[in-house]
Amino acid sequence: MSIELNDVALGTTVVGAPAPRGSALGADAFKGVFRRHPAGVAVITTVVDGQPVGFTATSVISVSADPPLLAFSVDSASSAWRALASAETLVVNFLSAAQVEVSARFATSGIDRFATTDWFTLPTGEPVLVGSAAWVRGEVLQRTPVGRSFLVSVLARESDVPTDVPSGPLVYHDRSYHGIGDHSVL
Amino acid sequence: MSIELNDVALGTTVVGAPAPRGSALGADAFKGVFRRHPAGVAVITTVVDGQPVGFTATSVISVSADPPLLAFSVDSASSAWRALASAETLVVNFLSAAQVEVSARFATSGIDRFATTDWFTLPTGEPVLVGSAAWVRGEVLQRTPVGRSFLVSVLARESDVPTDVPSGPLVYHDRSYHGIGDHSVL
Repeated sequence: MSIELNDVALGTTVVGAPAPRGSALGADAFKGVFRRHPAGVAVITTVVDGQPVGFTATSVISVSADPPLLAFSVDSASSAWRALASAETLVVNFLSAAQVEVSARFATSGIDRFATTDWFTLPTGEPVLVGSAAWVRGEVLQRTPVGRSFLVSVLARESDVPTDVPSGPLVYHDRSYHGIGDHSVL
Repeated sequence: MSIELNDVALGTTVVGAPAPRGSALGADAFKGVFRRHPAGVAVITTVVDGQPVGFTATSVISVSADPPLLAFSVDSASSAWRALASAETLVVNFLSAAQVEVSARFATSGIDRFATTDWFTLPTGEPVLVGSAAWVRGEVLQRTPVGRSFLVSVLARESDVPTDVPSGPLVYHDRSYHGIGDHSVL
C-alpha cells in the first residue's frame, strides 16, 4: 500500500475538510511533540487462522461510554494491520507497571510473542494476557483510513478488572516506561 | 443529534464490520476499565466567529509521523463539537504538570475559559496556551462519526516545544492528576 501525502484525506466521511495545501510538519518535529505526550500502554490481541496474534499500542482511547466505544490507530504497513484487516473481534489488554517486558515483547518482530507470556483463551477465542491491569473484549465496527494508517473503532462487549494485580498502570513517555501511583499524584 | 445503540456503525468507511449483536458492555464497567488507562492531557483550541474556543481532551493520539497526522475523539453533544464541526484548523496544546488548573478550567462549562489563562494568537488566528509543554497546529482532515462521537483527524502544519517549561507532562488517571519524570521511571 503506497499513499502519497496529497492523498491523506482518503476517508469517505470527510465533512468540510480542506484540501491539504502548504507544507506539512516534518516527521522529526512531529515526533518531538509527541515525545512530550505520555500514554498508557496496551497490548491488542486477537486470533487469526487459529493462531494468537498481538501487538503493543499506545494509541488506545475511550470514544464514549454509552455506547461503549474505543478506538486506536494502526499503521497499514505493520504486521498488526495484517491481522486487524480481517479480525472481527479483539481484546485490549491494559498493561500494568509490572509488564514492561510484555510491552517490549509485543513490539518486537520475528519472535513468538506469546511463547514466554502467561495468557489464556476466552470462550470466544481471543487471547488475554495474565497480569494486565484490565482488559476489554469487543467487536470491530469501523476501519477508517487516515493517511497510511487506519483508525479502528471497537464496540466493547465484556471486560474484567482483576483484583490481584498490585501495581498501577504502565505509562510510556519520551522513550521510557513510567509507573504512576501515590508517588506521582500532583 | 440522537443516535440509538443499534446505529453505532454510522460511518461510510465500514469495512467488513459485523452488525452489532448481543449485549454491549455497561457504561459503568466500561468507565471502570478506562480508569485504569492513563492519558496525557491536552487542550484543543481554535477560533470560531473571531472568538477563541478550547476544551480539555485526554484522547489525543499520534496516527503517523509521515504524513504527520494526529486524531482525537469528541462527543457530538458537547460544546466542543459545536466549534469543531466547522473549524478548519486547530491547535493541540499538550499540558505540563504545572497546568492542572488550566486542564480543569477548559473542562468547566459556563465560564470564560480564556479569562485567567495566559495565551497568545498565532498569525493564522488560533490561540496558543502559554506554559504548555508543546503545541502543534494543524488542519482538520476528517470527521468520522463513531456512535454519538466523532474521531477528528488532523494534518500537522507547525509546532513548538518551548524550552522554558521546566515541568514534565500532565497525566490524568483514575480521576487524579499525576506528574511524571525521574521519580516515576521504571
